[in-house]
Amino acid sequence: SDILCAQDYEALAAHFLPATHHAYIAGGSGFEATLRANREAFERVQILPRLLRDVTTGHTRLTLLGQSLHHPILLAPLAFQALAHPRGELDSARAAEATDTCLVASTLSSWPLEDIAREGCVEKWFQLYFQPMRDSTLDLVQRAEAAGYRALVVTLDAAVQRPSLRAQRAGFRMPDTVRPGNLIHHATPPPVELERGQSRIFQGLMREAPTWDDLDWLMRHTRLPVIVKGVLRADDALALKAAGVAGIIVSNHGGRALDGVPASLDALPAVRAAVGADYPVLLDSGVRAGSDVFKALVLGADAVLVGRLQVFALAVAGALGVAHMLKLLREELELCMALAGCATLPEITADCVTHRHA
Amino acid sequence: SDILCAQDYEALAAHFLPATHHAYIAGGSGFEATLRANREAFERVQILPRLLRDVTTGHTRLTLLGQSLHHPILLAPLAFQALAHPRGELDSARAAEATDTCLVASTLSSWPLEDIAREGCVEKWFQLYFQPMRDSTLDLVQRAEAAGYRALVVTLDAAVQRPSLRAQRAGFRMPDTVRPGNLIHHATPPPVELERGQSRIFQGLMREAPTWDDLDWLMRHTRLPVIVKGVLRADDALALKAAGVAGIIVSNHGGRALDGVPASLDALPAVRAAVGADYPVLLDSGVRAGSDVFKALVLGADAVLVGRLQVFALAVAGALGVAHMLKLLREELELCMALAGCATLPEITADCVTHRHA
Amino acid sequence: SDILCAQDYEALAAHFLPATHHAYIAGGSGFEATLRANREAFERVQILPRLLRDVTTGHTRLTLLGQSLHHPILLAPLAFQALAHPRGELDSARAAEATDTCLVASTLSSWPLEDIAREGCVEKWFQLYFQPMRDSTLDLVQRAEAAGYRALVVTLDAAVQRPSLRAQRAGFRMPDTVRPGNLIHHATPPPVELERGQSRIFQGLMREAPTWDDLDWLMRHTRLPVIVKGVLRADDALALKAAGVAGIIVSNHGGRALDGVPASLDALPAVRAAVGADYPVLLDSGVRAGSDVFKALVLGADAVLVGRLQVFALAVAGALGVAHMLKLLREELELCMALAGCATLPEITADCVTHRHA
Amino acid sequence: SDILCAQDYEALAAHFLPATHHAYIAGGSGFEATLRANREAFERVQILPRLLRDVTTGHTRLTLLGQSLHHPILLAPLAFQALAHPRGELDSARAAEATDTCLVASTLSSWPLEDIAREGCVEKWFQLYFQPMRDSTLDLVQRAEAAGYRALVVTLDAAVQRPSLRAQRAGFRMPDTVRPGNLIHHATPPPVELERGQSRIFQGLMREAPTWDDLDWLMRHTRLPVIVKGVLRADDALALKAAGVAGIIVSNHGGRALDGVPASLDALPAVRAAVGADYPVLLDSGVRAGSDVFKALVLGADAVLVGRLQVFALAVAGALGVAHMLKLLREELELCMALAGCATLPEITADCVTHRHA
Ligand SMILES: Cc1cc2nc3c(=O)[nH]c(=O)nc-3n(C[C@H](O)[C@H](O)[C@H](O)COP(=O)(O)O)c2cc1C
Ligand SMILES: Cc1cc2nc3c(=O)[nH]c(=O)nc-3n(C[C@H](O)[C@H](O)[C@H](O)COP(=O)(O)O)c2cc1C
Ligand SMILES: Cc1cc2nc3c(=O)[nH]c(=O)nc-3n(C[C@H](O)[C@H](O)[C@H](O)COP(=O)(O)O)c2cc1C
Ligand SMILES: Cc1cc2nc3c(=O)[nH]c(=O)nc-3n(C[C@H](O)[C@H](O)[C@H](O)COP(=O)(O)O)c2cc1C
Repeated sequence: SDILCAQDYEALAAHFLPATHHAYIAGGSGFEATLRANREAFERVQILPRLLRDVTTGHTRLTLLGQSLHHPILLAPLAFQALAHPRGELDSARAAEATDTCLVASTLSSWPLEDIAREGCVEKWFQLYFQPMRDSTLDLVQRAEAAGYRALVVTLDAAVQRPSLRAQRAGFRMPDTVRPGNLIHHATPPPVELERGQSRIFQGLMREAPTWDDLDWLMRHTRLPVIVKGVLRADDALALKAAGVAGIIVSNHGGRALDGVPASLDALPAVRAAVGADYPVLLDSGVRAGSDVFKALVLGADAVLVGRLQVFALAVAGALGVAHMLKLLREELELCMALAGCATLPEITADCVTHRHA
Repeated sequence: SDILCAQDYEALAAHFLPATHHAYIAGGSGFEATLRANREAFERVQILPRLLRDVTTGHTRLTLLGQSLHHPILLAPLAFQALAHPRGELDSARAAEATDTCLVASTLSSWPLEDIAREGCVEKWFQLYFQPMRDSTLDLVQRAEAAGYRALVVTLDAAVQRPSLRAQRAGFRMPDTVRPGNLIHHATPPPVELERGQSRIFQGLMREAPTWDDLDWLMRHTRLPVIVKGVLRADDALALKAAGVAGIIVSNHGGRALDGVPASLDALPAVRAAVGADYPVLLDSGVRAGSDVFKALVLGADAVLVGRLQVFALAVAGALGVAHMLKLLREELELCMALAGCATLPEITADCVTHRHA
Repeated sequence: SDILCAQDYEALAAHFLPATHHAYIAGGSGFEATLRANREAFERVQILPRLLRDVTTGHTRLTLLGQSLHHPILLAPLAFQALAHPRGELDSARAAEATDTCLVASTLSSWPLEDIAREGCVEKWFQLYFQPMRDSTLDLVQRAEAAGYRALVVTLDAAVQRPSLRAQRAGFRMPDTVRPGNLIHHATPPPVELERGQSRIFQGLMREAPTWDDLDWLMRHTRLPVIVKGVLRADDALALKAAGVAGIIVSNHGGRALDGVPASLDALPAVRAAVGADYPVLLDSGVRAGSDVFKALVLGADAVLVGRLQVFALAVAGALGVAHMLKLLREELELCMALAGCATLPEITADCVTHRHA
Repeated sequence: SDILCAQDYEALAAHFLPATHHAYIAGGSGFEATLRANREAFERVQILPRLLRDVTTGHTRLTLLGQSLHHPILLAPLAFQALAHPRGELDSARAAEATDTCLVASTLSSWPLEDIAREGCVEKWFQLYFQPMRDSTLDLVQRAEAAGYRALVVTLDAAVQRPSLRAQRAGFRMPDTVRPGNLIHHATPPPVELERGQSRIFQGLMREAPTWDDLDWLMRHTRLPVIVKGVLRADDALALKAAGVAGIIVSNHGGRALDGVPASLDALPAVRAAVGADYPVLLDSGVRAGSDVFKALVLGADAVLVGRLQVFALAVAGALGVAHMLKLLREELELCMALAGCATLPEITADCVTHRHA
């Protein structure tokens, strides 16, 4: 096989996807400064191996939000996976099940959340986008609870949802056949009408963006733990913890939200320092190898999520591809742990890395 | 349309301009070190978005020199806009009017300042180059006052006015049809004659360069507020404030004055620190996107001016191009504000950015 | 000749080796981040020459582990040198003998250690990989002692032994004719059988990785000094010294072990600081010129080893090539010493270098 | 003309010189790390212009070693200028005379020092290489004194005199017609015979390298001030000052001596700090523009020397070329001074520059 490491799915996917779809999936917003920053941040960190440790009892298990996971690699929520493969999220779920991986299903999945749940994956969370109307939001929450999802991941960095410049330049249009499986029966709210002098951004787009009140309301209307995705600031992290949020995901949406924000990995240490050692902090954006997972864990993450690797592997070989990618990624992580003398995740401490000289 | 963001006018303009004209407009002086530095400075700054803020009452209004502006993006003074479009400054003025933008008309405009003023743009300032003879300078000042310009922008970093190496290598010569509309009736002073041993620079070129005395004289001869353009040093900024100048523009002339000076953005924080929070400080040089405007505001600017984007948009589509560019730029700024949780300009504070790791 | 400096063998070797073999030898593990880092680290260091010193009594002699060496450049242990030249390690040994160089023979040499020893090289050490079974390890140790090797170099950073991605992509397979000359009579241990849920890394691969106990056992079963190769951490270095190890080699296996670890040269100063001035510390990884040797010595190494240069020179011209390369390398070192005013190795002090500005 | 700035002679010269000669002149030693570093150092420094200063009485005069110079740009000693132009050093001297420039004639000039002196250049120094035999050295010194040279520049960083790798690879050989005009009547000393075990560097090459004793001897045998060229260390600078040397030149021989040493410009500040404000310190290596001269002066140099620019201009247009290049360079310097508000050299102070962000 041509696939020697998890990242190989990235290059290979370009041959399995129409150029338009590839641009949509691979691209980042704006000038892709954040997309590049995500990778550069990982490349600046270097691993300091420890010699002669006995790691033969080693494993990667952890407990997160009271749930026990086999390993700290989760499948990030990704919209419209039917773009990459007809079975889309169904295959991702099947791969998750086969590899003991926790899946996060997107509000904008091409298949309904109930169908995804039926693929049998035990560990699964539901990623929630606030809907223009609270009823719709509540409907999603209740369906997720009913289908057995164990946590809600509320994504807050995506007030703007538009294909990237790269995707637009490549001529990407969402195919008619790809639909938001969870939302097809939701009523479409009337479009916002702007008065003269009003801003398309402030009075238009942002009218539907959730606020602290909405988050509060949500927590009062679900029994599931609520995790917030898209945090980059220490003060936001602290405020979310204080507000009763169960955990956070340091993320810049894989460079797809506001271009020009820092790499997640660069934002991580300050966030971890703010919330303390015991609060659940996950990270995504830029993870392409097991060594990246290791670095994120050293710098303060309890676990990571993989976005593009997942959809690239899906495009290449469906459920098998995703499962294989996850197996590779996990073994790459284990190898880093083994060579750094870390038998378990808590042994991955700050002294396991250093920073590259400039 | 191919124009998805304001910066797209930059690439597109190359197809709308003769190569010689493009070289003249796009180029910077010398080896273009400062031209590059301007962009690199913006790229080193990263935005830290804030979550969950309610910005639905947001707007971009500000008061500058007692004048209220709709937004903090001004049209920089650009000589000879007829190079880019036959209607040149007339079209820029029309676009300014249509988009509530403050225009700064150049001494070296291809159309007379009175014609530009007649396009109806309410907010307008006049950029003044000191003339070899005080009478000529005074004539310009009085015409600007009479035509309704509300401030004088005195540009001080352009003692040398010569097409860049890039322009000269491209074979650029100013077409005979492009004339300095404001100066055609001015008498040409006799050329400076150098004695043996004298320097073409010190005793030649610099004989006409304005000094503190000239600036003083100017302020005594106008009722308009005087703004100085081309400041890069904190001590100069402080001295200008002390001398009664109404505000300053941190600028390196878009990399067209002395090559090798720092990026304006890098010079900004020290200047702001020197003059204090309440003194009007604007910035230009290198602004290509709304996120750049946001970054400049975080680092201490009250507003910014756009030079090349303006003339590129003018070249592509005249008044419509400039208006469209300004609309895009403003929305890009608003989006940064919204995602950074800033409903108004004063909420754009230092903690909204961080610096990229080297 | 086309060979003007030692590093010229690097480029030339590409013409003398099949592409597959070249990929195997030249490549580094993973994305080759460490391979690149090794070179970048040397390039960041600058030499500060001293003027007017009399160095006419200069020489490069040193005493290491009680043995006197003519110069501080050793031949690193390299597996399977028959890939580069039919006579492989035999020719390297002959070159070592001719140039007063200390040779380190690999456990995985293509020729038996006894044959190598018979080439007459006086200074020679044996590089030991722990074998799956202690009997095999002991057999190697005793044969090395009997053959006159004067030290054991235990390599600890290569728990994973697999051709690099570059080699695999180039289609490299070990030719059937190239065999581990020292191990052909060793029994192959039964493959590790994993139980369900066990990790191929932790419970598989790492089961055979040596631990502190194994190192202890080794030191009790040999009368040779034991040197550990593959150290990158100051705490490991200190622990090894405390455990009775005779010396260490700061090395990342030439970027062939875990990808993403720091350059050896960057790791060196902290290691030296930890173990004190008198403890034997060697370095390899990235040495391509005499100036690199000089820099390593300034930053704390007593001597260096050359890996790829050796096998490249071997590929180009066998024993003659290796001898010529060593002669060039040594003269390059002497020239640095002479121009830096260092007549002997102890005069190579910290003030002989500075670090390049970023 | 195609020549718009002094540096343009660099690119143009490639068309006027045989490829071999160009490689010899343009190249640096080794991997050209120092050659590159020289330019990078200048590019890291940024000029901070001052506004509104009256510089109409400005000039560039200075007093150096009791001699008054019109400007702080000297012609560096360059061997074998007949490679670039048949009249070689004669034309350089004529250009020096025409532009009030101080010339430094090389020991290895293709024309005898007396012929060069006869071209009429008033300000001239003689660059001395110590010869294998003291008689030869003394002969050179006495001829230089007799011919009216006003200082001796002793170059100490060139113990190794060999065409660079670049030159050798290009196939450069010194043409038979190009001879060391000053040395043709000198006896050639017998070649050094090495004993077995002796080093070609320490006991060979370095036997003829001057030491502190030789420098002492020289100062006792000349009435000219002695300047040392090739200093990069503060401690050497201080020792030279203490030994009675009249001034020093911070130089790395334009990247042609030991490769891997720092840029002269990076070494300058520490050297200046060590010797104090009043001691004559010059700089060369990497100067390509008037702004470089300005930067060197800010960072501590009293004057600079130009090497390659001189020989490139010579290749392009003989005496006229060199004179034109010097005129451009000087005007470029004056322009920097004027825009930085410095009317005279002493006004060029540390606050006139800043360092580029990394
Ligand atoms: C094609 C695509 C679709 C995505 N859709 C969603 C989504 O629906 N909800 C969400 O919270 N994040 C979404 N993301 C962001 C991912 O959850 C994740 O933050 C990001 O992909 C991580 O960066 P990586 O791709 O470098 O691993 C999407 C990302 C991609 C690439
Ligand atoms: C073609 C061109 C002409 C210019 N003419 C003037 C001018 O007449 N007066 C002036 O003060 N600045 C002039 N400038 C400088 C601009 O006002 C402004 O400082 C600069 O363009 C800002 O940098 P930017 O182009 O990167 O936005 C000119 C700039 C350009 C590109
Ligand atoms: C082809 C090859 C084979 C190697 N085999 C061994 C080996 O058998 N044992 C060992 O300890 N190191 C081995 N190494 C690592 C070298 O000993 C040394 O650490 C490395 O080559 C130094 O880096 P350099 O190649 O940049 O000089 C090998 C390296 C190469 C390139
Ligand atoms: C072709 C060439 C020949 C040189 N010959 C001499 C020489 O004979 N004596 C000497 O002291 N320096 C010599 N140098 C060094 C110059 O004096 C000077 O230090 C160097 O060229 C400055 O760097 P630049 O070329 O970047 O200006 C030579 C340099 C070049 C390029």
